[in-house]
Amino acid sequence: MIDSPDITPEELQLAVRNHSLPLEALRYDITPVGLHYLLIHFDIPFVDAKSYELVVGGRVRRPLRLTMEDLRSRPTTTLAVTLECAGNGRARLSPRPMSQPWLTEAVGNAEWTGTSLAPILEEAGLEEDAVDVVFTGLDRGVQGGVDQLYERSLSLADATRPEVLLAYAINGQPLPPQHGFPLRLIVPGWYGMTHVKWLRSITAVDAGFGGYQQATAYHYRANTEIAGEPVTRMLPRALMVPPGVPDFMTRTRFVEPSRVQVEGRAWSGRAPVVRVEFSADGGATWVDAALEEAVSTFAWRRWTCAWDATRAGPHELCARATDAAGNTQPVAQDWNVEGVQNNGVQRVLVVVGATAERQPPADSLA
Amino acid sequence: MIDSPDITPEELQLAVRNHSLPLEALRYDITPVGLHYLLIHFDIPFVDAKSYELVVGGRVRRPLRLTMEDLRSRPTTTLAVTLECAGNGRARLSPRPMSQPWLTEAVGNAEWTGTSLAPILEEAGLEEDAVDVVFTGLDRGVQGGVDQLYERSLSLADATRPEVLLAYAINGQPLPPQHGFPLRLIVPGWYGMTHVKWLRSITAVDAGFGGYQQATAYHYRANTEIAGEPVTRMLPRALMVPPGVPDFMTRTRFVEPSRVQVEGRAWSGRAPVVRVEFSADGGATWVDAALEEAVSTFAWRRWTCAWDATRAGPHELCARATDAAGNTQPVAQDWNVEGVQNNGVQRVLVVVGATAERQPPADSLA
Repeated sequence: MIDSPDITPEELQLAVRNHSLPLEALRYDITPVGLHYLLIHFDIPFVDAKSYELVVGGRVRRPLRLTMEDLRSRPTTTLAVTLECAGNGRARLSPRPMSQPWLTEAVGNAEWTGTSLAPILEEAGLEEDAVDVVFTGLDRGVQGGVDQLYERSLSLADATRPEVLLAYAINGQPLPPQHGFPLRLIVPGWYGMTHVKWLRSITAVDAGFGGYQQATAYHYRANTEIAGEPVTRMLPRALMVPPGVPDFMTRTRFVEPSRVQVEGRAWSGRAPVVRVEFSADGGATWVDAALEEAVSTFAWRRWTCAWDATRAGPHELCARATDAAGNTQPVAQDWNVEGVQNNGVQRVLVVVGATAERQPPADSLA
Repeated sequence: MIDSPDITPEELQLAVRNHSLPLEALRYDITPVGLHYLLIHFDIPFVDAKSYELVVGGRVRRPLRLTMEDLRSRPTTTLAVTLECAGNGRARLSPRPMSQPWLTEAVGNAEWTGTSLAPILEEAGLEEDAVDVVFTGLDRGVQGGVDQLYERSLSLADATRPEVLLAYAINGQPLPPQHGFPLRLIVPGWYGMTHVKWLRSITAVDAGFGGYQQATAYHYRANTEIAGEPVTRMLPRALMVPPGVPDFMTRTRFVEPSRVQVEGRAWSGRAPVVRVEFSADGGATWVDAALEEAVSTFAWRRWTCAWDATRAGPHELCARATDAAGNTQPVAQDWNVEGVQNNGVQRVLVVVGATAERQPPADSLA
């Protein structure tokens, strides 16, 4: 924990490696490769797809070894899925949990192509005593003093849902190294830590999995005295494309007096988003935004809201989402030990009026 | 200037938007899209390629308006080019200039496809009094109190070199939004600020260009009393793939006692790289690394060096490059007002010996 707004050199090392979605890229239904957020715990492993085999074993009657050719010859599914890091929003907390210092933009919505996991587990034949399925990546490192391959588990019920995919393509192209080449897990609706990249093996186990990333990390807890609740599905969040033009260093936005069409995206992994509200006064008053159809069942919805940007001076714009299960974003940040599930509303500072000394050519004001 | 190792919230906003090359990606001859470094001053503009036109004007006899179809029908060149941000290394300076807080990894080597600029300028017919060519992007914002479109210029001699391209593809695919869709400038050998993205216009002018990014920013100066020297071509730099496995938070590396083959890349925009040296003792002693052929005339060279990692405990690994013009990387950082051209040697902390409590399965130690 650091009780300072400033970021330590260790956090910076993570911040320059990993990256979030530049907010203006919320404009795209499908996030282009290179704009989707990335969090890589250890190093990107170098994998030879030709010799690659996925090992399916543990408490199964017929262990499998599947090549990429085997996997590609199985029935294919393509799904647009919104992925968000469980630690999104962490850097806005005080004191700040020491980990990747995300602001609010660790999200993306890509089209993943792969094959359904459930039929593979059925083919392997789960033993009666199997309770969890462990997904192990090829990425190795040390975290919390534990030398580990990155691993997460799902219950049988969660692992066998029809939308759970073993994905080998993103936006119609083979996975690039940073997204898990040649194969990764996609678990629609869940925070990013679940979608294990560079999949090495899938192992059925007869007891709750105790690996570091499952049993120690990724828990929501108000203090260190308690074990807390495991992080699972995404809470609702709305983000806007910041209107106007930015200042390079402060990222403050400048808007000429006008009626501005604000747009953004909203998602939840708990239930469909049913409402997005917009505030131009820092959350004091709210108006309903217009909601478009979701890009897919597991993808974000576009929203728009007109804002009369007529009063000169600074304005704090906010957006908040509510889902069909009644979850609404809090206006204040919700502090917890690891800084996970922080879906406090986005705040964008916009100045209405003249920007600076020199105006660009009139025909450039697109 | 900030005289603190900690990063301010303003710097963090830039650090989460932009990103560097994860060092393990130095393994690839050609950097995959999404791993190449990115620095975007303002917002990524949203451009409709169908209505897009490049305007070539100013001091020319035959102004041109070129569609993407016009540009694609011209002769095609593909070049592998190493691009590095002029501010690479800035965050290691003390006091620290306030801008994008790069460590040492703001680099990439992509294959750019486009058409040569020189024949287009010839077609437009430069007037006798033309001295500079100004490249204007569609990206607008405020920097140094100036509302601007991002613009840089080149002298006629530099602009008409045969390797200068108007590029519309990267690694065989149309430019993604973040790399300048639909058209950008590529000036092999120069730091990244020169390679203007989202090109809107090319304008011949009859006097030295005084725009903010040309005349104010991107100067090497030891203090604020002097104007300094404009930043142009890249100084030499060598980077290594950090060996072993990382700790998530500290990024310290762990290596088992063994003979380690260290590998990396080296480049210079001034002259070919002719030597790379490796040090396993923080720069006290050096050995020559083996150099492979460059990927292309304007691209980095791979280098390798064996390291006997037998003594248990911490080691500081360094690499440094020298080019044919006699430029060598300094062992200490070279401070300047903007934090540009900082090619001080990379330092990687590696601990030889056991990593932690639990070892991963033996067959995972690839």
